[in-house]
Amino acid sequence: MEAEYYTFGPYKIHEKEVFYTSQLSYALVNLRPLLPGHVLVCPRREVKRFVDLTVEETSDLWLTAQKVGARLEAHYNASSLTFAVQDGPQAGQTVPHMHVHILPRKGGDFEKNDEIYDAIDMKEKELKNKLDLDKDRKDRSLEEMAQEADELRKLFL
Amino acid sequence: MEAEYYTFGPYKIHEKEVFYTSQLSYALVNLRPLLPGHVLVCPRREVKRFVDLTVEETSDLWLTAQKVGARLEAHYNASSLTFAVQDGPQAGQTVPHMHVHILPRKGGDFEKNDEIYDAIDMKEKELKNKLDLDKDRKDRSLEEMAQEADELRKLFL
Repeated sequence: MEAEYYTFGPYKIHEKEVFYTSQLSYALVNLRPLLPGHVLVCPRREVKRFVDLTVEETSDLWLTAQKVGARLEAHYNASSLTFAVQDGPQAGQTVPHMHVHILPRKGGDFEKNDEIYDAIDMKEKELKNKLDLDKDRKDRSLEEMAQEADELRKLFL
Repeated sequence: MEAEYYTFGPYKIHEKEVFYTSQLSYALVNLRPLLPGHVLVCPRREVKRFVDLTVEETSDLWLTAQKVGARLEAHYNASSLTFAVQDGPQAGQTVPHMHVHILPRKGGDFEKNDEIYDAIDMKEKELKNKLDLDKDRKDRSLEEMAQEADELRKLFL
């Protein structure tokens, strides 16, 4: 049986990396998470900008982000969440497929609390470099990501 | 005629500072914007966390954020948008009323693109200090904010 793939801009995401799906959105684990539980939520349809989403896609995406955030915050024993959209290149977007970063947050997780945003930005650039240039980087294996996705999938049963 | 006020956590927002309203949300200008067009979108109902919003409030809030972002990006001749929610104290939230930061972004607006998030965090802390401690700070006047809100209100006619 062939694996199913999800579209993430120019990249293909293996179904093993996806831990939650709704009618119009999906949630995936990260190639290089900044913190435990740092995940992404995307519309299934490939659109660059938030403004390109239909009313139904907008509602579905954010209801998905709300649900995913709540489950992950509890699962990772966190006490807050960061939601961020880098909507366009001048806002730090490097994968041209609109997506919401969700990060479970705890006291002291980053020394200076909002260094995390810089880190998000760096990570996107690194993902792009990795996939464009095939440089040697410490990416997680599909197996490792699949294991995390299996764990997270159980939160939604 | 008495002015109408909107609830923003423990603070009261004068209607002159509000430039767009929907059934369940409102958009306000900022006491100390980081960039031109840095505004906030809130649910009308006072809720601390994203997870506390109903399905209807979640849809309404993000459809409002989408619309406000698009109009402001054009109005400020920007090319991208930052959307951020600091959802809980460990994510940098200091005003305990869920809100979306929206910032029109341009190339070179911040030397290091994501310093903006640190700045958002600082701003929230300053707002709180200001209102709690009544320290001497360079806040904008209500008149100045009302003028900006008047300008922005026209984008939605």
